[in-house]
Amino acid sequence: MAASLEFFFFVGSTYSYLSVSRAAELARAQRVELIWHPFSVRTLMREQNNSPFVGKPFKLRYMWRDIERRAARFGVPFTGVPPYPIDPDELANRVATLAAMQGWCPVFVQAAYDAWYLRKQDPGSPEPLRAILTGLGKDAEACIAQANAPEVRDEYLSQTGRARELGIFGSPTFVHDTEIFWGDDRLEDALAWAVAGAPGRVGAA
Amino acid sequence: MAASLEFFFFVGSTYSYLSVSRAAELARAQRVELIWHPFSVRTLMREQNNSPFVGKPFKLRYMWRDIERRAARFGVPFTGVPPYPIDPDELANRVATLAAMQGWCPVFVQAAYDAWYLRKQDPGSPEPLRAILTGLGKDAEACIAQANAPEVRDEYLSQTGRARELGIFGSPTFVHDTEIFWGDDRLEDALAWAVAGAPGRVGAA
Repeated sequence: MAASLEFFFFVGSTYSYLSVSRAAELARAQRVELIWHPFSVRTLMREQNNSPFVGKPFKLRYMWRDIERRAARFGVPFTGVPPYPIDPDELANRVATLAAMQGWCPVFVQAAYDAWYLRKQDPGSPEPLRAILTGLGKDAEACIAQANAPEVRDEYLSQTGRARELGIFGSPTFVHDTEIFWGDDRLEDALAWAVAGAPGRVGAA
Repeated sequence: MAASLEFFFFVGSTYSYLSVSRAAELARAQRVELIWHPFSVRTLMREQNNSPFVGKPFKLRYMWRDIERRAARFGVPFTGVPPYPIDPDELANRVATLAAMQGWCPVFVQAAYDAWYLRKQDPGSPEPLRAILTGLGKDAEACIAQANAPEVRDEYLSQTGRARELGIFGSPTFVHDTEIFWGDDRLEDALAWAVAGAPGRVGAA
């Protein structure tokens, strides 16, 4: 695995559900190492005055329909619009950060998204979060305590700072060197770039 | 040609350059009739408080880079960032509306985008606009007079009204019945939908 691709995401980003469900398998098929980075897209959006859906009902309605259609296209389960927004204290994101530091980020984030999209729960609220962690064989209370401690908070801030420096403004964003690709619909382009260092020319693959 | 797809666009939308350069050939290959509708996305964006790039320098910088990469991917010429925004009076869009009413919309809009993206001109300003029209064998002054007359203004307003009713919020948007697809990156999905009335399942095409 020579090639690698950084996957910046926020648990609570709607389109990131598709990437969380797709990226690991696609990366594996292309022998690309995928490096998962939870970050606070909410902080960057606030800083950049970038609210893609707040107060924009037409765009919001389209977004859910688009995700439903894309999910069907990719064979990803979609069972109706989940609660939105979620994780107001970004606790699920800090647990994801802890998981990234300890090597179990993909399974936690997939479980968090399944809780959100399929069971319509907020994975940042205590009960669902404990159930997810217990389901993964973790000590839920210990994980939550660690997610609230300075070491994890600092790492979360640090990845958010890296995202800021890279010019990231949304989630998901895929990064190879300094090249950034925003959106689940750029996942294939990002993987092609990580492999070849160039756009994957249509028809030339 | 049983299937048809409506192509709502605004001359001045950056990503629409890719669709204007790609859509006709892709539609032809799938035997889909493509119906070109210039509309005032600017009016709808104002109404919907939806300014995707104003005051968002990171997102703006990314947008140009993304278009450059996507153009390379599709074999569409890209020679650097063109002037932006353009067509403040929406004259090029009203000429496009006249062209749609008279059956020469695709060639005019491609020429307008070539002037904008490749020669770095505003196709809505008098000199480039006259040159484009003359190059297409049209009487430039007569076309501009018609584009400023009530019949064309009314048609432009009418298509903008249809876009509003369909829930459109950006350009380009592709419409089949009431199903809308926003963005050049949904062109393939929209064509698949027009043909099959369903998402084009990956791997099942």
